[in-house]
Amino acid sequence: MHINTLIHARWVIPVEPHELVLEHHSIALHAGRIQAILPSNAACTQYSADHTIELPQHALLPGLINAHTHSPMTLFRGLADDLPLMTWLQEHIWPAEAHWVNADFVADGSRLAIAEMLRSGTTCFSDMYFFPDITAQVATEMGMRSVIGLILLDAPTRWAKDATTYLQQAQRVHAAVQDEPLITTMLAPHAPYTVSDHLLQRAVAEYQLPQRWHMHVHETAAEIQQSLEQHGMRPLQRLQHQGLLNAQLTAVHMTQLTRSEIEQLATCGVHIVHCPESNLKLAAGACPVQHLVNAGVNVALGTDGAASNNDLDMLGEMRTAALFAKQVAQDASAISAAQVIRMATLNGAKALGLETEIGTLAPGKAADIIAIDLNDPACQPIYNPLSQIVYSATRAQVSDVWVAGKQRVAHGQLVGQDIAAYITQAQTWQQHIAARQAIPTT
Amino acid sequence: MHINTLIHARWVIPVEPHELVLEHHSIALHAGRIQAILPSNAACTQYSADHTIELPQHALLPGLINAHTHSPMTLFRGLADDLPLMTWLQEHIWPAEAHWVNADFVADGSRLAIAEMLRSGTTCFSDMYFFPDITAQVATEMGMRSVIGLILLDAPTRWAKDATTYLQQAQRVHAAVQDEPLITTMLAPHAPYTVSDHLLQRAVAEYQLPQRWHMHVHETAAEIQQSLEQHGMRPLQRLQHQGLLNAQLTAVHMTQLTRSEIEQLATCGVHIVHCPESNLKLAAGACPVQHLVNAGVNVALGTDGAASNNDLDMLGEMRTAALFAKQVAQDASAISAAQVIRMATLNGAKALGLETEIGTLAPGKAADIIAIDLNDPACQPIYNPLSQIVYSATRAQVSDVWVAGKQRVAHGQLVGQDIAAYITQAQTWQQHIAARQAIPTT
Repeated sequence: MHINTLIHARWVIPVEPHELVLEHHSIALHAGRIQAILPSNAACTQYSADHTIELPQHALLPGLINAHTHSPMTLFRGLADDLPLMTWLQEHIWPAEAHWVNADFVADGSRLAIAEMLRSGTTCFSDMYFFPDITAQVATEMGMRSVIGLILLDAPTRWAKDATTYLQQAQRVHAAVQDEPLITTMLAPHAPYTVSDHLLQRAVAEYQLPQRWHMHVHETAAEIQQSLEQHGMRPLQRLQHQGLLNAQLTAVHMTQLTRSEIEQLATCGVHIVHCPESNLKLAAGACPVQHLVNAGVNVALGTDGAASNNDLDMLGEMRTAALFAKQVAQDASAISAAQVIRMATLNGAKALGLETEIGTLAPGKAADIIAIDLNDPACQPIYNPLSQIVYSATRAQVSDVWVAGKQRVAHGQLVGQDIAAYITQAQTWQQHIAARQAIPTT
Repeated sequence: MHINTLIHARWVIPVEPHELVLEHHSIALHAGRIQAILPSNAACTQYSADHTIELPQHALLPGLINAHTHSPMTLFRGLADDLPLMTWLQEHIWPAEAHWVNADFVADGSRLAIAEMLRSGTTCFSDMYFFPDITAQVATEMGMRSVIGLILLDAPTRWAKDATTYLQQAQRVHAAVQDEPLITTMLAPHAPYTVSDHLLQRAVAEYQLPQRWHMHVHETAAEIQQSLEQHGMRPLQRLQHQGLLNAQLTAVHMTQLTRSEIEQLATCGVHIVHCPESNLKLAAGACPVQHLVNAGVNVALGTDGAASNNDLDMLGEMRTAALFAKQVAQDASAISAAQVIRMATLNGAKALGLETEIGTLAPGKAADIIAIDLNDPACQPIYNPLSQIVYSATRAQVSDVWVAGKQRVAHGQLVGQDIAAYITQAQTWQQHIAARQAIPTT
């Protein structure tokens, strides 16, 4: 049979079945989808391909899924570090956003973010930011799969001046991307403490909007305390009263959870996105990942924005997640290498409603595939490639990336992207932003 | 003036003064030492050099100091992961060591480790393992600076059959490396729970040995419990009774510390090596780094061995240390980027008794220098290079490394090392070790 591409690899890690590592296997790609996964010997006899790629010291995995980020914030990367959360937000990030964020900022920041993500093996990201139509457009241009968050907030911004405008903008963006094959949308009310019950109810009732939700929930202890004071209940209770605790909700962070809330999340089928590096860097708290997994909750993985991480590197995030989970559970067997790879692939796909399309390597699924070159002194020798990928490899070892069958990274380089130009654009923003930061605001 | 090498860099981070970042500066090297650090314009007029190196998008730092590792254990990297500590040690690591560790193992494992460390910006490591004479020899051959631990244990091994032999071996190795310019030694009694008071006293009294000590102390809660049961006191108390709590002791791990012990360590001037990734991976506990720093204790950084990390990557370790410290202190301002860079350089030099020689970039010090290329989409734009180095850079961005003025990495490649051969050797060991592991031990 004649196909587009045949990839021969030393290892293939399909994610499902769990922990399976195929050796000397090949993936046949055709028309943007995985045609077959089979031993390389058999592949050579069964298929002829336009392109044949030999990856003799590499592992193939499903493309990584960054289930929560704010991609344009790359332009604020390292603007304000090592600061307490509220100082960071109130004195640095929010003022900088109010002054700088516009369509151009979002375009240039998203472009740098998508370049960074593709280069490091992420093939799909779920975004939450202003001007999501711009991020959607950049993602489409760059051939990246994305889930575009339709942001909702009470506070006026350059993107929308009031509740009605936020909802209209959301509806407009949702309609505009309907025909883009690599884009889906989710409602993205920012957080319980920034979105009123009234706005949430209008989002359910008044507009033709997706009813899949993506929201920061229980990020810090202060959020819980404030909610108890203002609403007489914890944020999760508020969402329950609004009818939102169900399998359509993807709740991000969740560092503050009681035992009964964990049971409730499992019963309701709420998805969780764990962002360990952001939680650590902001000292926000610890998501009880192993407890959630034990309870049957689907836990995905995200980097959060570059201002609180400070990279969009899912390989690094997997390692941090696996290490941190062991400390939180006080158990060295918590969240194994195979489990954290699943969090960054299949669980991410489930949290975004895309599990029939991506998240594992299987015939019929979209050909979102990455190759990791393990021929690095820091990854040798190899007893188990799952371990070396999670505990020893870095993003620089991602050699090849395909999204929907199109090769976006080859030999460690972005294909058809002018990365030098994106960096220059980012540096121009940085010079303006840093110059203004230097002026004391009295 | 004519010198060996002149390096022009975008940024120079001397570590001392704290937080200083020099822009467009140059380092003049001569006869293995730093001659001067000065603005690049001035450098071009004052010096002519045999070699001039332009690093227009790079930061120069002191070489990183891995203050605690077991370098030959690279050959066990990923042999047994995601297991509880005692299962990992008793069922996997100790049996594997008993069967496999000999002089050849140590040579091949050390070679791979030193290649990995040099490649990732480490210019000095402090080692604790069997056959330390072999590690010393390999380090010398490869041009790496090292502090060789003279291991002491109660249990017989292939290296030494009893206390007297351990002490004789230690004395022999110590004498043998006296004239090596890049090697110093420390006594390395393994841990309070594996070394008797009697052996410690003999090490103090009977032999001509270095009286600087390097020891695992308070790694886990179980170690404390066992000591209370067997000795009626905590391990630190035992060491105090032995007269060992002083500025000659470098205590590794220290995850179990009371407030009064922290004060005591500060008073006695004990140095600490924090190994965050190993502590996390083995769920050993959390070293209270910010409390120690506040108390005035010198805290250095180490990777521990590759079997519990699983790499020897000090850039990654710095990031984990900075992130983890914030969570442990419940304070996002704990252990800043500048502080963690100091832990991995100057504090490491102090913990190893080498602070007059290495640990900062300053005229007269040994030219142990690394360059990090920050022109990577994940590190752009750059508000503060300290932040990007700690929170965004990976080891692959280490472009150039000098040890005592000799260039050991250039353009990201090891100079004069056959890395492919080292990897092949490691793979041969792995095949033998894995084959034996596969046989059930009934």
